[in-house]
Amino acid sequence: MNSNIGILGGDLRIIFLAKILAKDGYNVYTYGIEKDDFINYNIIKCKKIEELYKLCDNIISGIPFSKDGIYINAPFIDKKIYVSSTLKELSNRTLIAGAIKQDIKEEAYRNKVNIIDLMEDESLTIMNVIPTVEGAIQIAMENTAFTINNSKCLVLGFGRIGKLLSRQLKNLGANVSCTARKEKDLAWIRAYGYKEIHINNLNENLNEYDIIFNTIPSLILNNERLKILKNKNTDVTIIDLASNPGGIDFVRAKEYNIKAIQSLGLPGKVAPITAAKYIKETLEKILN
Amino acid sequence: MNSNIGILGGDLRIIFLAKILAKDGYNVYTYGIEKDDFINYNIIKCKKIEELYKLCDNIISGIPFSKDGIYINAPFIDKKIYVSSTLKELSNRTLIAGAIKQDIKEEAYRNKVNIIDLMEDESLTIMNVIPTVEGAIQIAMENTAFTINNSKCLVLGFGRIGKLLSRQLKNLGANVSCTARKEKDLAWIRAYGYKEIHINNLNENLNEYDIIFNTIPSLILNNERLKILKNKNTDVTIIDLASNPGGIDFVRAKEYNIKAIQSLGLPGKVAPITAAKYIKETLEKILN
Amino acid sequence: MNSNIGILGGDLRIIFLAKILAKDGYNVYTYGIEKDDFINYNIIKCKKIEELYKLCDNIISGIPFSKDGIYINAPFIDKKIYVSSTLKELSNRTLIAGAIKQDIKEEAYRNKVNIIDLMEDESLTIMNVIPTVEGAIQIAMENTAFTINNSKCLVLGFGRIGKLLSRQLKNLGANVSCTARKEKDLAWIRAYGYKEIHINNLNENLNEYDIIFNTIPSLILNNERLKILKNKNTDVTIIDLASNPGGIDFVRAKEYNIKAIQSLGLPGKVAPITAAKYIKETLEKILN
Amino acid sequence: MNSNIGILGGDLRIIFLAKILAKDGYNVYTYGIEKDDFINYNIIKCKKIEELYKLCDNIISGIPFSKDGIYINAPFIDKKIYVSSTLKELSNRTLIAGAIKQDIKEEAYRNKVNIIDLMEDESLTIMNVIPTVEGAIQIAMENTAFTINNSKCLVLGFGRIGKLLSRQLKNLGANVSCTARKEKDLAWIRAYGYKEIHINNLNENLNEYDIIFNTIPSLILNNERLKILKNKNTDVTIIDLASNPGGIDFVRAKEYNIKAIQSLGLPGKVAPITAAKYIKETLEKILN
Repeated sequence: MNSNIGILGGDLRIIFLAKILAKDGYNVYTYGIEKDDFINYNIIKCKKIEELYKLCDNIISGIPFSKDGIYINAPFIDKKIYVSSTLKELSNRTLIAGAIKQDIKEEAYRNKVNIIDLMEDESLTIMNVIPTVEGAIQIAMENTAFTINNSKCLVLGFGRIGKLLSRQLKNLGANVSCTARKEKDLAWIRAYGYKEIHINNLNENLNEYDIIFNTIPSLILNNERLKILKNKNTDVTIIDLASNPGGIDFVRAKEYNIKAIQSLGLPGKVAPITAAKYIKETLEKILN
Repeated sequence: MNSNIGILGGDLRIIFLAKILAKDGYNVYTYGIEKDDFINYNIIKCKKIEELYKLCDNIISGIPFSKDGIYINAPFIDKKIYVSSTLKELSNRTLIAGAIKQDIKEEAYRNKVNIIDLMEDESLTIMNVIPTVEGAIQIAMENTAFTINNSKCLVLGFGRIGKLLSRQLKNLGANVSCTARKEKDLAWIRAYGYKEIHINNLNENLNEYDIIFNTIPSLILNNERLKILKNKNTDVTIIDLASNPGGIDFVRAKEYNIKAIQSLGLPGKVAPITAAKYIKETLEKILN
Repeated sequence: MNSNIGILGGDLRIIFLAKILAKDGYNVYTYGIEKDDFINYNIIKCKKIEELYKLCDNIISGIPFSKDGIYINAPFIDKKIYVSSTLKELSNRTLIAGAIKQDIKEEAYRNKVNIIDLMEDESLTIMNVIPTVEGAIQIAMENTAFTINNSKCLVLGFGRIGKLLSRQLKNLGANVSCTARKEKDLAWIRAYGYKEIHINNLNENLNEYDIIFNTIPSLILNNERLKILKNKNTDVTIIDLASNPGGIDFVRAKEYNIKAIQSLGLPGKVAPITAAKYIKETLEKILN
Repeated sequence: MNSNIGILGGDLRIIFLAKILAKDGYNVYTYGIEKDDFINYNIIKCKKIEELYKLCDNIISGIPFSKDGIYINAPFIDKKIYVSSTLKELSNRTLIAGAIKQDIKEEAYRNKVNIIDLMEDESLTIMNVIPTVEGAIQIAMENTAFTINNSKCLVLGFGRIGKLLSRQLKNLGANVSCTARKEKDLAWIRAYGYKEIHINNLNENLNEYDIIFNTIPSLILNNERLKILKNKNTDVTIIDLASNPGGIDFVRAKEYNIKAIQSLGLPGKVAPITAAKYIKETLEKILN
């Protein structure tokens, strides 16, 4: 592989990624990151976007690649960079970015851009569970006036995030309950030593908890359940980790004075270095 | 449900199961268990097998139901009980047993026996992972002259047993490495904090370990790999948890003077009470 | 005991304490807390301080009782309350507060005030280790761009806080090293599975870590050691948990651009409810 | 130091110690070990005890050095070796052994033997807690028909062994209760997340447990308490780790049909290699 790597826009993770790549000996060229001067790093800032295209066959961009479908995700430059013109320029090159929408992918194919979506790499998704879980715990710590230790935590959903989150909460000394619907998941919940709650019995157990973490991407904490939480004796803090629109009726929660926090994109927010390290590992796997 | 329950043969687990059921208020009738007199338990031993059939609509038998396909699995009675005649007598009744072979199932259908195989219950299979893992650890403790704490353990296979075993070994202070082939499993191995070894790189890592636990049901520790273990500096202990014929060339291992232990049916051996408790939970789920 | 309890000043913990006591059926009277209206709580705010004295034989005040030795610690009222006049009024009553300075204690004796210092209760000190440790972890999470999981953490000092902090960091997946001077402590560090570093060998190990937690109340991270940290390859975050003046040369740390955070009074800051609960338990033990 | 090391008698640990020392490059001479031929090890077996004395300034012997005060502890040779004559021959040499009785020490001084008692080394005592705890768990596993996971365990005494044992039991998934008398210890029990039982309230809690581990070296499980255990609903297994005569009335326990197991010298029994490794570390510390 050509050891020139281009970085085009992106958030804090991409800045850290540029630094890690430079430390590892890659020739890193950037465009669209004004926030950091990369002092002490062997990173070259291109003055014009065309330089980047000329020098690099592999271009890394943001996660997501574009938020609105029109401009690329480049929060650290004032100038707007069009998706369309970028894709035209990148013909016969490889563009590596994340959460790329279907129509952008199709446009890329038409322009003969070799497109790679980091978010489709299952290993990276799994590795990101670690900073997601730690971020969720940090947010819980910041938003409660008690310790996780000895608190009563409910984890809604026993998928990737639910599994690791339950473990870390228990490791910190919390009393952990988990919900699931499938017999199989309920058996695992028992096997790992958590309290099991069948989702059908959620309502009658709901008012026991100090913190509720949701990982289910459908409206699980609806008006009916929020009413139960509203009437309980002590305060509860809800942390929603499910992707947009999440699993909580936030409007009702606010009305009922229940603290509910939507927490998305945690790896990039709480641990961009760790996130960048994982992206770098994925990148090398892809490029090799 | 009719609260009469019949117990027909079975191993230590089934004896404990009878006691748990009796304590819980079921009317328990047994045939084919001479080992225990059930003193202090409200359990009635039938003198003749026909009494059992007359009194009970639900009959529980051993796991496996039959080892040879001819007689039922009843180690605690001298008399032999035929599978065929039993199935004839059980017409219009429910027979609950484990690991029932296909031809016995078919014969049962012909005889209008409602047959339930406990081993096909996924929850029970998952719950049995707990005593299997603890049994594996007990066997490792008994067969090594060092502590699990601070030892180097390799877990071959990252399925149900591999996952929980790795966790418990780490909890006891071992340095744990796990093998897998799929990227996804390797990512989970990293996420849980174990050392990951791609199965393709097994050979060059093999001589680092004090204990190797195998959960893969194919010949993973073959002659070539056993040779590597034979030539390593310090002794290794191999514990095979994979179902028959297991994953180790036991003949070669013996020839090379490598300690290799086949450990099957651990729940019934190391923790029959726990195993009986899980069967009882499954039974109630099935009967309700 | 007279079930009237007076609350005089104090921080957030004391507010939560008032609420917990009221919920538990005590008659709670307060003076010096304007921040909270105690709506829905059976708590009576005294208009004048004299009412409090008249109604309550047991008066609880802040931790510390006084910061400057002149006024009592009452951050949630504008008015200043003198220590001297308070002690005169409290004659023949019991004053329960924390970290009471020696000269105030003597003045209390002269005024026949029965004085109880919560901070001299060893159980309370031990219980406070839990929120201290969790607070330290929260601060570490907030001040690093990577996860605790898989980070390299150094804990300076293996006393109460060092012991529990090491455990929780390891539980979260960190690689933990601990320092000590005594052979005995180093043996425990090994026994618990952390990397041991004799304090005499600290310098040559110092540049390995991502986060350093200090619990030693003397200048351990002095200019010489900060220079080592300054010259290391990657950033380090230092969190100082040792009581004032702490164990870090903060002036030099700033000069060298090393992130060093002094974290005092964590239970009251990160988990006032938990802290209040522990005070309440101590209080009941004292009063019974 | 003279790199000749003499080994005189001793149990399995001392055999492993000889091997570890030989592997590490010491010239190892032995007398009084017939069990092992040390094939493949660079170890020289002295034909006569006098050769050992002539060649080695540092002589390592058993733990304990002598069981009866007359002969040295040398289970792997038929011949009896007198303590008295050994001490005379060792004049001006260093004898390293364990648990040396006071009168033997005095006799050694008179004979100008430089005597070192390994059991007086606090680090070694602490390190031995690890194999002791793992041995206790192994014995519990072997003597119960249920899993440690999810069992109810009571740990009597919260000293060195009690602390680490509680942690490992909890790590395996047990519900752990600990007893103590001092407020301080009870606070630590709470802080670590175990259930606390004041020793004064032991009787009313005693019949809850599946396994009781004792570490208190006085008659804690006396007739009165064994009667409580006798009358409880389900079986209990008692494991006594306290040094002789232990903390259990074994005669009564037998009479009441309660399973009580005295477990002494566990490191040498369950993990002699680990124990030998610790002795070697201590030895090098002493000799350097």
